[in-house]
Amino acid sequence: MLQTKQTNLESFLTQYKDRARLLITCNDQPGIVAKISKILFDQGANIVQSDQYSTDPSGGTFFMRIEFELLEMEKKRKQLEEDLQKAANELEIKWQISYMNQLKRMAIFVSKQDHCLLDLLWRYKSGDFYCEIPLVISNHPDLREPVESLGIPYYYIPVNKDNKPEAENQQLELLKKYNIDFVVLARYMQILSPEFIRHYRHRIINIHHSFLPAFVGARPYERAYERGVKIIGATSHYVTEDLDEGPIIEQGVKEVNHRYNVEDLKRVGRTIERDVLARAVQLHLEDRIIVHGNKTIVF
Amino acid sequence: MLQTKQTNLESFLTQYKDRARLLITCNDQPGIVAKISKILFDQGANIVQSDQYSTDPSGGTFFMRIEFELLEMEKKRKQLEEDLQKAANELEIKWQISYMNQLKRMAIFVSKQDHCLLDLLWRYKSGDFYCEIPLVISNHPDLREPVESLGIPYYYIPVNKDNKPEAENQQLELLKKYNIDFVVLARYMQILSPEFIRHYRHRIINIHHSFLPAFVGARPYERAYERGVKIIGATSHYVTEDLDEGPIIEQGVKEVNHRYNVEDLKRVGRTIERDVLARAVQLHLEDRIIVHGNKTIVF
Amino acid sequence: MLQTKQTNLESFLTQYKDRARLLITCNDQPGIVAKISKILFDQGANIVQSDQYSTDPSGGTFFMRIEFELLEMEKKRKQLEEDLQKAANELEIKWQISYMNQLKRMAIFVSKQDHCLLDLLWRYKSGDFYCEIPLVISNHPDLREPVESLGIPYYYIPVNKDNKPEAENQQLELLKKYNIDFVVLARYMQILSPEFIRHYRHRIINIHHSFLPAFVGARPYERAYERGVKIIGATSHYVTEDLDEGPIIEQGVKEVNHRYNVEDLKRVGRTIERDVLARAVQLHLEDRIIVHGNKTIVF
Amino acid sequence: MLQTKQTNLESFLTQYKDRARLLITCNDQPGIVAKISKILFDQGANIVQSDQYSTDPSGGTFFMRIEFELLEMEKKRKQLEEDLQKAANELEIKWQISYMNQLKRMAIFVSKQDHCLLDLLWRYKSGDFYCEIPLVISNHPDLREPVESLGIPYYYIPVNKDNKPEAENQQLELLKKYNIDFVVLARYMQILSPEFIRHYRHRIINIHHSFLPAFVGARPYERAYERGVKIIGATSHYVTEDLDEGPIIEQGVKEVNHRYNVEDLKRVGRTIERDVLARAVQLHLEDRIIVHGNKTIVF
Repeated sequence: MLQTKQTNLESFLTQYKDRARLLITCNDQPGIVAKISKILFDQGANIVQSDQYSTDPSGGTFFMRIEFELLEMEKKRKQLEEDLQKAANELEIKWQISYMNQLKRMAIFVSKQDHCLLDLLWRYKSGDFYCEIPLVISNHPDLREPVESLGIPYYYIPVNKDNKPEAENQQLELLKKYNIDFVVLARYMQILSPEFIRHYRHRIINIHHSFLPAFVGARPYERAYERGVKIIGATSHYVTEDLDEGPIIEQGVKEVNHRYNVEDLKRVGRTIERDVLARAVQLHLEDRIIVHGNKTIVF
Repeated sequence: MLQTKQTNLESFLTQYKDRARLLITCNDQPGIVAKISKILFDQGANIVQSDQYSTDPSGGTFFMRIEFELLEMEKKRKQLEEDLQKAANELEIKWQISYMNQLKRMAIFVSKQDHCLLDLLWRYKSGDFYCEIPLVISNHPDLREPVESLGIPYYYIPVNKDNKPEAENQQLELLKKYNIDFVVLARYMQILSPEFIRHYRHRIINIHHSFLPAFVGARPYERAYERGVKIIGATSHYVTEDLDEGPIIEQGVKEVNHRYNVEDLKRVGRTIERDVLARAVQLHLEDRIIVHGNKTIVF
Repeated sequence: MLQTKQTNLESFLTQYKDRARLLITCNDQPGIVAKISKILFDQGANIVQSDQYSTDPSGGTFFMRIEFELLEMEKKRKQLEEDLQKAANELEIKWQISYMNQLKRMAIFVSKQDHCLLDLLWRYKSGDFYCEIPLVISNHPDLREPVESLGIPYYYIPVNKDNKPEAENQQLELLKKYNIDFVVLARYMQILSPEFIRHYRHRIINIHHSFLPAFVGARPYERAYERGVKIIGATSHYVTEDLDEGPIIEQGVKEVNHRYNVEDLKRVGRTIERDVLARAVQLHLEDRIIVHGNKTIVF
Repeated sequence: MLQTKQTNLESFLTQYKDRARLLITCNDQPGIVAKISKILFDQGANIVQSDQYSTDPSGGTFFMRIEFELLEMEKKRKQLEEDLQKAANELEIKWQISYMNQLKRMAIFVSKQDHCLLDLLWRYKSGDFYCEIPLVISNHPDLREPVESLGIPYYYIPVNKDNKPEAENQQLELLKKYNIDFVVLARYMQILSPEFIRHYRHRIINIHHSFLPAFVGARPYERAYERGVKIIGATSHYVTEDLDEGPIIEQGVKEVNHRYNVEDLKRVGRTIERDVLARAVQLHLEDRIIVHGNKTIVF
């Protein structure tokens, strides 16, 4: 399986070595698309896919995602970035570019529940996810085996109310050392401090085990059971300082009925959680998400 | 179409003139099924469908729905009911029976929005619903035409904060006069008083335009838009004194994305609302719902 | 309600009088987006939304949908169309433009079943659909009332195996006379001849009562029942000479179980059919569909 | 994790040592429920859950599933079975009973694709499935590691057109030796012979990678892509001599669009397949399925 991954990855990197994605946010105004597409065309780029959205054509905010192919990207990207920056200055554009031959580096935080972790690892090793997973961090030692068996380092950093700041410092140093791009909380049962979150603004993906905003906070399945809902769900969102209030990336649901006790809800919920989290991670890996205020544009 | 309905209804009433449904709630204990099924068998009944559920076999609550066929039901039902009452006294059973040749009488309350009303009327006239609709009550005059065109009286009773008690009295008198079994609030935009609700406990069905408990209260689509959810929904529930907190009967959802503005959410929401409400009404018409605490058992 | 529609329509036409949609198909090649967006920009247009897709960046086919705003569209559209045609000649582009202040004219064909018709009419009169419905044609007289009550002419044209060519001629003449843009078969139970279809290539939308390609042909619910499927569905597609084989626009499904007899499947199926057909019609009205071979690109 | 499983299993076996499930099929006739429930009651059993269904109350077939609790089941089951057999002879009933303290023994057949296998193993080791997995058989050596790491023997039996009968004999001997109750084909890419199937009639569960009856046979995702469907799915069914035609247990679907190439369909499909297969296995483990003709009753 790791061989599959290796083969997949190599063919991916070869196939897409001249491919990049450009994300743009600015005030809506005539000529943006023309301007940007001209810059790309002048460099010889071919736009492979583009999506755009405007909250309101007059006075709203404009968002665009462009995936393009540019032969000899490596040689031309400096010039391209300069041209983009020039246009950005003119039109007050916020932009970011990601080159597909630079795999994103994802850290996974986990506690004791394994379903989300195992699903992420499976998608990684089977070649569904094009990324690196340089490390996994946990506040429990339980899930070391499936992680290390893939050759991924597993860091056990206990967290309690006394050592939280030190624990977070340790975590942040590891993330820095491993050059991590974004963090996935795969049912990590600790609340991150605002300081921690600030380091990875809109780069920490959480999975909450309810269809938010229903059942914000603890014990959502127990409360879903008590309320007698006929549908349960899970929500993936970027973590912000407000617990369970960050920009929603993806949600999923499943019908249930009175025969489901709390354990049944949790069992069904686990399959929703892992699917929703995996879809959110994939969207992030493919640079499909732009955060705007407390909402996401998902292209 | 009304002819279709008439033909459907007549064939329904003929086909099911000897059919009844029995709903039972009691403390779980050995022998309930044997006892009840023996009573039915001794009268010559054939159990056509039965469902049961127990919250906990030791010390829990037991629920059962039995649909049965009994030749010459009309002649035998008095004896049957006496036997059931005797067993009920012994085993402390709460029971209710409904005979399928006695169509339930449904009142619809409506305001200005027509989608739920039209869908209920369509299901009624096309013969999907086996029931009577003796009247429609509205706090606005707008929707008179589609109601009266089916020969159903439409009562326009304005409601405002000054006349609410009188308005509700008028409504209650009409419900009594027309011998109404249950009330459907088809996007009726008034809150009913506890006094009103008491008259029709667990016999008033509402449709709320969110997947409860998310967005309890007013303006759920606006709030869904602001929160940036990726799924919207609707919830049908029995009305209790606590607004939007009654026992949930049925829920439905639909995926949305950032391109949906509030109007789009409302448009999509309308098709969810009418479907969820119609399913809830059908379940009620078929005596499939038992309320237990603030939850529903739906057989 | 018709007043609602009128108000909605007028505000729509005012709001979007300078709005148009451009659909493009061509061989993929660098510079298409730059070229087209420059033409639009040079005329002063603001691109409000754009989507594109390429089957394969090297040697594939390229599709684009652009919605744009151009002040004084009426005065500038001639020049714009000339510029587009010039680029089209150069780059071998197939293009079409639709101006949002020119409402599409939709004819509905219907037989005896009313659910799809009623839903289309409801969306029309409630202002969800921005279009005209100049006439309804039926091979049965049954559904005249709900059509004429909206002031829409209802043409009853019986069809049998002997008169089919004449009947189709009559239909075609009516479509021509009323200047119809596209036809919706709302459970119209007649097969159209290849000659008829040729007049409205990719402009006839059908709803088939199964999740195609399962249950192509007649009696899909009966066959779904016999096969014991756990999910039923409906499919909306453009009509081609091959029955039920045309390009699929939209599909919808619903879970069922062994308790559903054929009548139940039909009842549930009706709510799927009307929803799927309405979504397909909306996509068509918004110029979101490009047909490519026997498939659709839906932006 | 294996510890979790062990703890879960032990508490399950203790909790349900006096619990059994009875499945019944017979011609519909008055008094069946009364008769059976009396037999259970006379032994002291408490019916915990019961479901029944009749294809047609007059002249149809009757199905019932009863879950019951009987103190000291071990001592009383012989008498109970005799009583049931006596009634069965009288009423021409087909019945089967399963005692919940006797875990079902499941064999998994697998080829090279790992997603269904891994999901089954995860549900097994996390204690979602109450069963034994005494062995895994594969026609490829690839997936040995995740199986053996759980202490489950992995038998690699190559199959080709020359050795198929011998290979099947080897498989059958292993199934016999390990006392296997039912077989799960977790994307096993070989067609079983009618002889093999006869040994495990309605006890071989397959997962087909399409929403049957669409795309019966090979390469369903490629064909779904060519047809341009907007929904893909997977189907779990019992294997019969007719390929992909056996009784359907469970189906699942997911919406797709023109952006999904064949590889994307396969990737999404894998998550549908594993979920649908796991749900089917769970239903089988809980004795919820009765096969009737070529259809399933799923209680």
